[in-house]
Amino acid sequence: MRTEQSNSPGTCAAPGERELAELDAHWRAANYLAAGQIYLMANPLLREPLRPEHTKPRLLGHWGTSPGLNLVYTHLNRVIKARDLDAICIWGPGHGGPAVLAGSWLDGSYTEHYPDITCDEAGMAALFRQFSFPGGVPSHVAPETPGSIHEGGELGYSLAHAYGAALDNPGLVVACVIGDGEAETGPLAASWHANKFLDPVHDGAVLPILHLNGYKIANPTVLARLPHEELDALLRGYGHEPLHVAGDEPAQVHRAMAAAMDTALDRIADAQHAARTDGTTERPRWPVIVLRTPKGWTGPHEVDGVPVEGTWRAHQVPLDHVRDNPEHLAQLEAWLRSYRPDELFDDRGRPVPDVLACLPAGRRRLGANPHTNGGLLTRQLPIPPLEKYAVTVDERGATTHEPTRVLGDLLEQVMADTAERRDFRLVGPDETASNRLQAVYRATGKAWEAGLLPTDEHLERGGRVMEILSEHVCQGWLEGYTLTGRHGLFSCYEAFVHIIDSMVNQHVKWLRTTRRLPWRAPVPSLNYLLTSHVWRQDHNGFSHQDPGFVDHVLNKSPEAVRVYFPPDANTLLVTADHVLRSKDYVNVVIAGKQPCFDWLTLEEARVHCARGLGIWDWAGTEDGAREPDVVLACAGDVPTMEVLAAAGLLRRHLPDLAVRVVNVVDIARLLPAEEHPHGMPDREFDAVLTRDKPVIFAYHGYPWLIHRLTYRRAGHPDIHVRGYKEIGTTTTPFDMVLRNDLDRYRLVMDVIDRVPGLAVRAAHVRQRMADVRTRHDAWIRAHGTDLPEVTDWTWPH
Amino acid sequence: MRTEQSNSPGTCAAPGERELAELDAHWRAANYLAAGQIYLMANPLLREPLRPEHTKPRLLGHWGTSPGLNLVYTHLNRVIKARDLDAICIWGPGHGGPAVLAGSWLDGSYTEHYPDITCDEAGMAALFRQFSFPGGVPSHVAPETPGSIHEGGELGYSLAHAYGAALDNPGLVVACVIGDGEAETGPLAASWHANKFLDPVHDGAVLPILHLNGYKIANPTVLARLPHEELDALLRGYGHEPLHVAGDEPAQVHRAMAAAMDTALDRIADAQHAARTDGTTERPRWPVIVLRTPKGWTGPHEVDGVPVEGTWRAHQVPLDHVRDNPEHLAQLEAWLRSYRPDELFDDRGRPVPDVLACLPAGRRRLGANPHTNGGLLTRQLPIPPLEKYAVTVDERGATTHEPTRVLGDLLEQVMADTAERRDFRLVGPDETASNRLQAVYRATGKAWEAGLLPTDEHLERGGRVMEILSEHVCQGWLEGYTLTGRHGLFSCYEAFVHIIDSMVNQHVKWLRTTRRLPWRAPVPSLNYLLTSHVWRQDHNGFSHQDPGFVDHVLNKSPEAVRVYFPPDANTLLVTADHVLRSKDYVNVVIAGKQPCFDWLTLEEARVHCARGLGIWDWAGTEDGAREPDVVLACAGDVPTMEVLAAAGLLRRHLPDLAVRVVNVVDIARLLPAEEHPHGMPDREFDAVLTRDKPVIFAYHGYPWLIHRLTYRRAGHPDIHVRGYKEIGTTTTPFDMVLRNDLDRYRLVMDVIDRVPGLAVRAAHVRQRMADVRTRHDAWIRAHGTDLPEVTDWTWPH
Repeated sequence: MRTEQSNSPGTCAAPGERELAELDAHWRAANYLAAGQIYLMANPLLREPLRPEHTKPRLLGHWGTSPGLNLVYTHLNRVIKARDLDAICIWGPGHGGPAVLAGSWLDGSYTEHYPDITCDEAGMAALFRQFSFPGGVPSHVAPETPGSIHEGGELGYSLAHAYGAALDNPGLVVACVIGDGEAETGPLAASWHANKFLDPVHDGAVLPILHLNGYKIANPTVLARLPHEELDALLRGYGHEPLHVAGDEPAQVHRAMAAAMDTALDRIADAQHAARTDGTTERPRWPVIVLRTPKGWTGPHEVDGVPVEGTWRAHQVPLDHVRDNPEHLAQLEAWLRSYRPDELFDDRGRPVPDVLACLPAGRRRLGANPHTNGGLLTRQLPIPPLEKYAVTVDERGATTHEPTRVLGDLLEQVMADTAERRDFRLVGPDETASNRLQAVYRATGKAWEAGLLPTDEHLERGGRVMEILSEHVCQGWLEGYTLTGRHGLFSCYEAFVHIIDSMVNQHVKWLRTTRRLPWRAPVPSLNYLLTSHVWRQDHNGFSHQDPGFVDHVLNKSPEAVRVYFPPDANTLLVTADHVLRSKDYVNVVIAGKQPCFDWLTLEEARVHCARGLGIWDWAGTEDGAREPDVVLACAGDVPTMEVLAAAGLLRRHLPDLAVRVVNVVDIARLLPAEEHPHGMPDREFDAVLTRDKPVIFAYHGYPWLIHRLTYRRAGHPDIHVRGYKEIGTTTTPFDMVLRNDLDRYRLVMDVIDRVPGLAVRAAHVRQRMADVRTRHDAWIRAHGTDLPEVTDWTWPH
Repeated sequence: MRTEQSNSPGTCAAPGERELAELDAHWRAANYLAAGQIYLMANPLLREPLRPEHTKPRLLGHWGTSPGLNLVYTHLNRVIKARDLDAICIWGPGHGGPAVLAGSWLDGSYTEHYPDITCDEAGMAALFRQFSFPGGVPSHVAPETPGSIHEGGELGYSLAHAYGAALDNPGLVVACVIGDGEAETGPLAASWHANKFLDPVHDGAVLPILHLNGYKIANPTVLARLPHEELDALLRGYGHEPLHVAGDEPAQVHRAMAAAMDTALDRIADAQHAARTDGTTERPRWPVIVLRTPKGWTGPHEVDGVPVEGTWRAHQVPLDHVRDNPEHLAQLEAWLRSYRPDELFDDRGRPVPDVLACLPAGRRRLGANPHTNGGLLTRQLPIPPLEKYAVTVDERGATTHEPTRVLGDLLEQVMADTAERRDFRLVGPDETASNRLQAVYRATGKAWEAGLLPTDEHLERGGRVMEILSEHVCQGWLEGYTLTGRHGLFSCYEAFVHIIDSMVNQHVKWLRTTRRLPWRAPVPSLNYLLTSHVWRQDHNGFSHQDPGFVDHVLNKSPEAVRVYFPPDANTLLVTADHVLRSKDYVNVVIAGKQPCFDWLTLEEARVHCARGLGIWDWAGTEDGAREPDVVLACAGDVPTMEVLAAAGLLRRHLPDLAVRVVNVVDIARLLPAEEHPHGMPDREFDAVLTRDKPVIFAYHGYPWLIHRLTYRRAGHPDIHVRGYKEIGTTTTPFDMVLRNDLDRYRLVMDVIDRVPGLAVRAAHVRQRMADVRTRHDAWIRAHGTDLPEVTDWTWPH
């Protein structure tokens, strides 16, 4: 950990000429290596004149942002070394993979992670060749890149990741390069206000570096084209004190950048000192560096008669016909030689001492800081024994609890037990209490560094519940937090978790890749609690009804995604315990916050959750001697209640029918074993759900998901699924299930329709069920409430 | 249309005492009606003392934001009337349904749309009862609400919608209330910069009204707790001139709000005059009103001893036990009577003249402005005959075109033909040229009002291509644009359209609902062109690979979603022509931008697209006398090429095999007819895809989607799907299909494996295919390019 002194103001002198020359040498070397990766297959040090066959047949990569990233890498090296700083960097313009790979190769961390890529001419050749080459490495800053916790392919999340990494790491400085393209995205724009949630006492610092290189793929960027005073006002409005660095003359920019870095780090140290030592509670105006340099800086100035450097044309590959256009080839050679590689690398291709002079050592190097391989720092989360929190179930279905409230008590203890360690956070868009988790406020408050009023409750500097009305920022925080090795839970309205569909895509892709990299230590899972779900949007209605996130995540790599539907309070406790202990997954837990019947004791819940699905003997009417006549299956708390109510009705009205009730917690169990690690072999599946009996499946979400999971099973033709059919409005809970044909009466009718021979024999029962449904319609229009026989229902004993 | 004079500065005098009293009367009436909707089932005018049974059994609604929205409604009425303004309002805090419903009822538009809800006591009773009541109306500003184009359930999109509505409506003022909760979201934060794309000559004005009522559900809001100078700097940084209105004393706030509205509209008029008459090209600093009033203003100040008004506790229902707590009931009665309903409504329950004094008339009313029922204003888009743009296909598969580039030529003409009408826009996140649609720049430029440099290209004040690096803003613009009756196309990288998954959810829900409202005229569809798709991310790799948007939209209401996979240039033209003419859909078109073989002539493309899927006789080897031995089906341009290459291989190596090739353009055709309006009856499906022959289906996206669509078909057990299996990196096109087992050689092996009797007879062919795949691996590692026999392949003639 960085000591207080190491970043105290004034300890870092402005660089003299010699140091400036060294910084420039490092930067030139990095630029050379970045361009080399994009272009060269051979002749890495230009020992011989450049020939077409030295260049790659397909030129793929992003040059435009690379020189700017290299500049930041160089100058971060300097301050880290000078101040013995514990710092990492989030590279927002992650398309600039060549830059960060170059930096990592130069600081030696690349070779440590990939011993084949040695730090000499052969290694340089391999580094060049593998870049964006089949079987090689991706063109972006990627999971494969040492020192990174941020895939830069999808733009928008760098700043939220930076804040997530800084939380509860008081000794850490997280630099964050934000491209001016990325700055136009919504998630990035929202993330600026994350500084109102960062506590200068308990958290580290974030140093945003807004890199205005002026262009996106094909357009100028908005921020680069604002008048200076407007941009300055914007950043001040975000709560920052801007430090402007601009230019295209390297020596001058080096001086300005070094000064800005020093000023920024001094101010950060001042602010932390004031808060930590002097007890200041005023929110610091944290520094932001605005770095304005040309896109594709030091690359070809003009190509084929049109300007390239300093325009959008420098975005990817500035010279794109080097194999078949001798002029392009000559220009490439001149460009590469302009860095004077012979001065930068020795005769064995190793960087010369001047190039390496700015580098910090060991774990201080940006490519080797353990925070960027967070699993190295993870401690097991202390989860107390569940017995204390479990609800007592003397009679099934006789009592109710709000499952998320029960979970809240457990989370309170986890919060309390991590009060010193500070490695657990709860995030959510303003919904922790709405989702009934407010017990946690007994252990910690909500992070809040903006203004306070006497009427406020539970707001706390350094609180570990994070609430901002932005699912994007919540997700970004938690990704940054877990990737640096800490634990957390994101509680979210089910419908609105779609807001971060694309972010979770990227996080699953990240985990799928890191799972295959031996040097990446497993990190805590990213856990969702989706509540306020589709069936209970009584006062929000149609816009708040969407259970499709499950479908979305189940499209992703099976090795990294898990989805659970605990049907009651105790199963939710067991599921939460499991997911909070797990690593390298995205876990999705869907559970209601409304009162729900207690079905299973803790011990039963443990067994049931471990199996992932199971027959609820007590609910069915099988005698065990033969196969049942029908299976009532369910996944989700509301469908479970409807299925049990249907089972109760069948027991009363058709006592001879052998009904099996199956509850599914772990939805991936339905998949074949080849398709998902939790998938069931056919034999097991058939033993539970039968090969040829009608299965009436009441599912929480879109019904076709169950078909998508089970279509290979022998019994699939007779699986009939009820679920959400995109029918909804502001209405009562039972009206919702009825409108979507998921209600108990409809399920009984389904059984009668599907079990051979019942249609005639049970016609009167079917009619009775239909009558109740009709009566419901009249009742609700008159009273605005559900039928008493529904609201008063309990499991028959 | 508003004339220039009608909003000229200085025409609107500050309100005198009498007018202030009238404004207050309207506001009080609206507040009364808002509270009445949340609470009352009967006794709407409090003619008798309030009893528990007059109140609703379930209290559902959002009071907190309503008084502020009412204030805006009142003051917009005033300026619309005084200036004969053509204005609409986007109600960002859409949870405040009661307020907007109240305003619409008061201006008479509600009764015009819903004649049962008369503007008298009986109508008031019905208005109250229906609110958030089963069978009634949603609690949010919803499609059912007259005067709205914005569902306020999911927060974040109001400002982008406002800009979308203002584009190409030079006479329109779009007020936009932004809640301080919503302001924390990413999409909203990004939308502030939309003012760099709004042209004061060709577009209308947006007047943002940032409503700081201080709280979300359970927390203070960030913006409300910033120091004044920081908030002011932020808004100036966004390019606005803030006008601050604050207070909790109604008369003073009325005066301040009237003055701010007048100042804002004067400045808007000045800016438009300067641009339109004086030719000023400097970007105006548009006004923004910052309205700071208490949450739940005029509601209960304290309840049960804790403060409510002015805190988060006023968010929903401030008194929640009026049926069983006499104190709550008494407090409710006192609260309602505090508005003095007897002064506001006459003995028949009609608003008195003072209440109505501020109202504009006819189509000027906020509830009746035709821009909010945009289909009323829609003109058919002029699409030129496709013949001119179609590619010539003398020999199938002999030539290639980039389909999106061909489409670009067509779009150029549409742009040219709408140059005067200005009712067509192309939006996209910086990718129009990258997606090969740059021909449009010959007809119009890219909207750009920020700074210009000499090197810039295609930037144009008033240009109708909109590029900002925010899918959210693009989507919001196009939603606002189409809901106000104009046409557009959103071109987007396929993977990143997931960024707006949740927005498209809401838009489909909107369309599904408006389709059932007879008074809502159909609006142009929202059209996506998804390109730069999963199979051609050569230089971006894994992070840019996700074909799951189709799965997402197919979860939504079938009546409103359409998905197309045109396999070549001519089918793309026909598809584009179709979707651009259509109304009330979300159309998703997936088509590549890379060179693609031309398969169908224009005439064939027309027939094929009309059918949605069909047998390509020329590609297969059936003799027509008997059923084929195997069906090779495909959907998507890359799978089509692989299937045709496989068909060519089979023709060569297994000439006796009867192969049928089926191409699917309209993916919903695979669904049963009961499930989707485009679904095929079983008989038709079986005639094309057979009941019992092996079908090898090469699909563009996640393979299980095809199973989800076809699981009810007789032939489903023998449908075998290849698609994207979430395997990818930066690599070559053929390597991508090979890694995912979608390649031609694998497809031939699949045929051999699945057709009975072939396994032995064709073992040597199978081995040959496997050998090529092995050879590919070696080749690509050595050369970094695809096998020549793949890159040189053409359809055998």
